[in-house]
Amino acid sequence: MASLSIDATRQVTMADVEIAMLDLTTYEDGVMAQAARHHLGSGGGRVRANLALQSANALNLSFDTSRAISAACELLHNASLVHDDLQDGDTVRRSKPAVWTKFGSNTAICLGDLMVSAAYAAIASARVHNLPEMIAHMHQRVSDVIGGQHADLESDCSTIAKYNDVARMKSGPLLGLPVELCLIAADRSSHVSEAMAASDAIAIAYQTTDDIADAERDIEAGAVNFLAMVQGDMRSRTQAARLHASEYALKAITIAKTLPGGSGNGLIVLAEKFVPHLAIGEAA
Amino acid sequence: MASLSIDATRQVTMADVEIAMLDLTTYEDGVMAQAARHHLGSGGGRVRANLALQSANALNLSFDTSRAISAACELLHNASLVHDDLQDGDTVRRSKPAVWTKFGSNTAICLGDLMVSAAYAAIASARVHNLPEMIAHMHQRVSDVIGGQHADLESDCSTIAKYNDVARMKSGPLLGLPVELCLIAADRSSHVSEAMAASDAIAIAYQTTDDIADAERDIEAGAVNFLAMVQGDMRSRTQAARLHASEYALKAITIAKTLPGGSGNGLIVLAEKFVPHLAIGEAA
Repeated sequence: MASLSIDATRQVTMADVEIAMLDLTTYEDGVMAQAARHHLGSGGGRVRANLALQSANALNLSFDTSRAISAACELLHNASLVHDDLQDGDTVRRSKPAVWTKFGSNTAICLGDLMVSAAYAAIASARVHNLPEMIAHMHQRVSDVIGGQHADLESDCSTIAKYNDVARMKSGPLLGLPVELCLIAADRSSHVSEAMAASDAIAIAYQTTDDIADAERDIEAGAVNFLAMVQGDMRSRTQAARLHASEYALKAITIAKTLPGGSGNGLIVLAEKFVPHLAIGEAA
Repeated sequence: MASLSIDATRQVTMADVEIAMLDLTTYEDGVMAQAARHHLGSGGGRVRANLALQSANALNLSFDTSRAISAACELLHNASLVHDDLQDGDTVRRSKPAVWTKFGSNTAICLGDLMVSAAYAAIASARVHNLPEMIAHMHQRVSDVIGGQHADLESDCSTIAKYNDVARMKSGPLLGLPVELCLIAADRSSHVSEAMAASDAIAIAYQTTDDIADAERDIEAGAVNFLAMVQGDMRSRTQAARLHASEYALKAITIAKTLPGGSGNGLIVLAEKFVPHLAIGEAA
């Protein structure tokens, strides 16, 4: 990543992160680079990149380290999207054709691989003394999310406990990773387990909320959905899902508040999105 | 990787490398771990792992660094095999069902991803001061091989120069990487370009030789094959392929001999396999 011309005293912007991600995935000007530009240029919330920048800023990490963690986490997430779309047969991503739809399955497999590799190249540009620890943790969380993706694909969620497990494994690792890597980079590894617990809880809140929109289609298709697992009419099932999401979001907020120097504030903002749905008003 | 109980003054064995690879790919005892054991347990020449151990030994690298480079390169190679088999529709690998055949396409995609990630976790256990440089180079070579895999899948090799390019990009990067990483770890980065040139030449020799066995099937199917690109009957085409392979193998040997401390000896032994076919005897 070309960093020589950058004023390293300013804060990292999302544009810096976008450039870093493209630099590492478009070495050659062929179809792979086109596919990388197509996918990375299609937008997305950059939730994980933003979480990293927020935590890195709270913990006073350097420009290079902040950008490295942000780009690494966002690349891993996007690798998982490119492969998930292929695995799930989803043809559209962010209102554009999914990579496998536009460029074919083989390119989608290759692009996901390239992005996983690029994520580690990104993290290697962190200026830290404990890079090996950060990489070991990154692989641990990648293993978790691959286990979760696999559990999701193979799952027969028969209990809410199992549902929570799959939701947690599927989305928790890459939501927590930005904060976890910042904590390790800042020599605050003792707080990593809290960041993991908070992101696990957010993942459950997110998945349960997400299930509300897909409920009718999923129930018809016999697919895993929180609303398929509870009793009652659709209104009361929806309410149960909101309560479940709120419960875990509040749990996440409580834990994230204990993270040092406000490094959990990004997780808190994310978790709060699932609390307005708290159905107290409706239930009253 | 559990290294506490190991006598770090002894040389790394292939068993050490096998254990390291399994440790990093079987965190959870689910289907993913089964698939990893199925694939890694199916054997294979461990050519890249052996190249790493030979070069590491020649350059007096430590136990941890030697094992790290060896496991990292072999994991990358095996990731590429798992994904290649899926992409090419090859159902058998080392006389056993390919991962995608036995466990399904989704598991094969996930396992390849896990192995790429594990390769970087492996390299992070090297005890070196220049880990970032090693990781950056590793990603460069992964990008090269993905470009090559992609060129192979999409290729219409119309000239021998193009054929050489595809062969070089497809197999060169992961053949050279073990030696290249050892050179970087030993602070001999100035020799990396020679290792790259030698492995590129071996890749061409290997691919051309490999094409001889597949020639009739490939020519019938219109697939890329060196023998399809030259004139004459099958005997003279085979001879042309052997001459082409020998030329590049000898080029590789000449370059590998310039590598410091005998660190190119593994590459030389590999290249020599393609020289006995030198058709001087036959042509005379």
